[in-house]
Amino acid sequence: SGKLFLIAGPCVIESEAHVRKMADAIQRITSGLGVPYIFKASYDKANRTSVESFRGPGLKEGTAILRRLAEATGLPVLTDVHEPGHCEIAAEGADVLQIPAFLCRQTDLILAAGRTGRAVNVKKGQFVAPWDMKHTVGKLQTTGNNRFFLTERGASFGYNNLVVDMRSLPIMRKLAPVVFDGTHSVQTPSAANGVSGGQPEFIPVLTRAAVAAGVDGIFLEVHDNPAEAKSDGANALDLKYLHGLLETLLAIHEAAHAKVTAE
Amino acid sequence: SGKLFLIAGPCVIESEAHVRKMADAIQRITSGLGVPYIFKASYDKANRTSVESFRGPGLKEGTAILRRLAEATGLPVLTDVHEPGHCEIAAEGADVLQIPAFLCRQTDLILAAGRTGRAVNVKKGQFVAPWDMKHTVGKLQTTGNNRFFLTERGASFGYNNLVVDMRSLPIMRKLAPVVFDGTHSVQTPSAANGVSGGQPEFIPVLTRAAVAAGVDGIFLEVHDNPAEAKSDGANALDLKYLHGLLETLLAIHEAAHAKVTAE
Amino acid sequence: SGKLFLIAGPCVIESEAHVRKMADAIQRITSGLGVPYIFKASYDKANRTSVESFRGPGLKEGTAILRRLAEATGLPVLTDVHEPGHCEIAAEGADVLQIPAFLCRQTDLILAAGRTGRAVNVKKGQFVAPWDMKHTVGKLQTTGNNRFFLTERGASFGYNNLVVDMRSLPIMRKLAPVVFDGTHSVQTPSAANGVSGGQPEFIPVLTRAAVAAGVDGIFLEVHDNPAEAKSDGANALDLKYLHGLLETLLAIHEAAHAKVTAE
Amino acid sequence: SGKLFLIAGPCVIESEAHVRKMADAIQRITSGLGVPYIFKASYDKANRTSVESFRGPGLKEGTAILRRLAEATGLPVLTDVHEPGHCEIAAEGADVLQIPAFLCRQTDLILAAGRTGRAVNVKKGQFVAPWDMKHTVGKLQTTGNNRFFLTERGASFGYNNLVVDMRSLPIMRKLAPVVFDGTHSVQTPSAANGVSGGQPEFIPVLTRAAVAAGVDGIFLEVHDNPAEAKSDGANALDLKYLHGLLETLLAIHEAAHAKVTAE
Repeated sequence: SGKLFLIAGPCVIESEAHVRKMADAIQRITSGLGVPYIFKASYDKANRTSVESFRGPGLKEGTAILRRLAEATGLPVLTDVHEPGHCEIAAEGADVLQIPAFLCRQTDLILAAGRTGRAVNVKKGQFVAPWDMKHTVGKLQTTGNNRFFLTERGASFGYNNLVVDMRSLPIMRKLAPVVFDGTHSVQTPSAANGVSGGQPEFIPVLTRAAVAAGVDGIFLEVHDNPAEAKSDGANALDLKYLHGLLETLLAIHEAAHAKVTAE
Repeated sequence: SGKLFLIAGPCVIESEAHVRKMADAIQRITSGLGVPYIFKASYDKANRTSVESFRGPGLKEGTAILRRLAEATGLPVLTDVHEPGHCEIAAEGADVLQIPAFLCRQTDLILAAGRTGRAVNVKKGQFVAPWDMKHTVGKLQTTGNNRFFLTERGASFGYNNLVVDMRSLPIMRKLAPVVFDGTHSVQTPSAANGVSGGQPEFIPVLTRAAVAAGVDGIFLEVHDNPAEAKSDGANALDLKYLHGLLETLLAIHEAAHAKVTAE
Repeated sequence: SGKLFLIAGPCVIESEAHVRKMADAIQRITSGLGVPYIFKASYDKANRTSVESFRGPGLKEGTAILRRLAEATGLPVLTDVHEPGHCEIAAEGADVLQIPAFLCRQTDLILAAGRTGRAVNVKKGQFVAPWDMKHTVGKLQTTGNNRFFLTERGASFGYNNLVVDMRSLPIMRKLAPVVFDGTHSVQTPSAANGVSGGQPEFIPVLTRAAVAAGVDGIFLEVHDNPAEAKSDGANALDLKYLHGLLETLLAIHEAAHAKVTAE
Repeated sequence: SGKLFLIAGPCVIESEAHVRKMADAIQRITSGLGVPYIFKASYDKANRTSVESFRGPGLKEGTAILRRLAEATGLPVLTDVHEPGHCEIAAEGADVLQIPAFLCRQTDLILAAGRTGRAVNVKKGQFVAPWDMKHTVGKLQTTGNNRFFLTERGASFGYNNLVVDMRSLPIMRKLAPVVFDGTHSVQTPSAANGVSGGQPEFIPVLTRAAVAAGVDGIFLEVHDNPAEAKSDGANALDLKYLHGLLETLLAIHEAAHAKVTAE
């Protein structure tokens, strides 16, 4: 249709109470604005910079938490998977399985995710050209699963920095619906001491730009207290800014839409 | 104010008749839309890839053509300068002197341009971090000239390719008004055989994104027949698309504006 | 000691006969030159661009082939692992477990490899700054395994291209012994149609440079018929060039050595 | 021949006494090692980051100083030029005119330098692909001057950082003799506060690598007291390290040579 959807939630499941609190708060905002909303949280952060970092409740407990959340809220739920063997279990709790950017070239993981029949969101690797995502799409299609989308989250630009190439959005939209990840795109990888830093001040700038360039959805890691978040707090959007940001994005989407679809 | 302005025209003065034709056509469009308009054309293309490429009428003849155009149309005129000794003469024909991206570190050129008292537009070099434009601004300020703005036109991204980092726009806006150059940003430097190639299909995408990110003006090289343009035709916007693009940009600007100024 | 070692072999186990043929041929060359030699081949190519590409004999059969090869030749053997659950089995056939570049941030894989007690070679991701490999080293050290080394194989440089930053070699050598991968560093990722292309003509240039910069070992995918190789033939070194290249590298290593160790 | 030559000296003419002192000291070292030596110093630093930075004695006085130095020492002298109109005067004092990297696309400057009949050294811009230097060579050749060489000094790699792509050396050697600039390649552009910083600890690593990769000459800014240098001290080689570095480079050059020329 052209309706902008939102994937949002805390980076990791910090506790069942916290994901419920976040889902409820975000759902109130998106309902008010008429934005389709998919809840996002990870059960395991498998590629933290440091081995001491918090990783989450793990596959089984995390999946159970997500399933209860989906039932209680009626929201579709997205979570990311890291090994082929985890996909079936994760699919019990989640409506969308997400392939992390670092793993977007791992054939078995993509195939296992595709075979669950769940929708699949593949994040484009920081080392992948947008046109090369056609190979990922080709792998997914061999599973007979045609419910997938692709997410832009920045490209390597020198060391400890990412740049978002807005040309990637129309290039990937020829392959599948495209989501812009406004919070990982402002990461400064490993720039802090043992954890990735971030520039949350650029979340509004980049998401506005991406929506004007043309995307189908927006991905945001949102936290009610980023300074205390157990993962990726440095680049999370503070919940208190979400409503205002979405209002602006919807207005831009509408302004850009006629032209975007006409091209 | 927040009103989006336009700098536009053919890359180079192909003939007096052609710049007049282009200025008239663009002026009709911008008048209808209420967009402040600055005419742009170069009297000399001093850094063509090949020595055989067309360079323009030269400093004196070009300046005279621009002055007559300004008088006839009432439009302010922008042209680029390449040597300190050319600034005074160019200033007779132009209201805005532009420092090309490759030359944005040449102290004497910046000082000479600043001393003319004309407004100065400095294009950020493809090799310069946005925060380092403060040094350029510092040089300009020593001339007592405070009428200047900065233009984003892409950063080096591997070979024969540029990427537009939308974060540069708010970073540079802390220093001066910022223009986004939507046509040079889609150049593929020297990628063609002896001339720079381009991806004009991305002009709408990148200008929409930049306006949503937040800029003060847009720069576009516009030609009524890009395939026959004597310079940079590969990345020029075809005149026939200008009206539609500006309409979209104005709508996006308005949608983004409340938020942009509120940040 | 300062003795340069070699890790080399075909990209993938094409057949038991072929890996034996390659191991024998390379061993003859390295024995003659007094170069310590570790045989390399993959049992599974888990991140091929296309799902139709040849992947190898798989974990169990591949491990058995490698174990027989090690017994027959007396050579230490290296192979790469892709999932934590594969490490124990792979360790039965291999003396060195290698973490692929795309997976160098996957904590569980690094820990599982470390816990086998086998030596571990971690390839630096194309998206990782050399100083950030300290986090990988930290993860490995928590397993009590101190037999590891790090491999440079190029950094993302725009799209479909890698650049080798020779500064990474001394930076990483402060963390562990460092290997330079002269064949993956000349890959042009996904640049060909569905497979990665390569520039084998630059293998000698980059390996000479790396040895002069200072490394502990060299990694080369070597094939007796690159045009017919079942994986990565586009960037493999033709076996017929190996002897001459090693001679040059040894001479450069000796010439550079006094200075390198004196710094 | 294959004999490695050296271009070296202080970044800028700090005083006549200082350039003489530096030339004498370097000449003693190169004579002892049998290395052909070209003295280098700039009369004007035209692109300093800050307008307050020291720029040198200027064109006329600088040229006179260089001419007297050439006469007294018998050394060939190199200096860089920034405007077409300066080339003839600079050619009175210098045997080699150098085009700065930022200016390598300025057609008139290249033509003016070529027309003096002096040898011309063009530094490859940080934003230029090595194969595109053929266009620069083409411009020079239209002047009938065939005495030119090309210098590698790093490519833009994200912000405030350069990377040396060693592949550029053989690519450019198909066009002309190639020099590796070991001191500007370790600049961190504008990373310090208003001046470019540097990583002189990487000068030996990169020059060793470049010589092993294969070059015709080495360019080094050398100072007897880098901490007090009036320009670019942050990336200069301390004079006291020059002899040891050259010894190593000559040994590597000899070790690599047979192979390099045989390719």
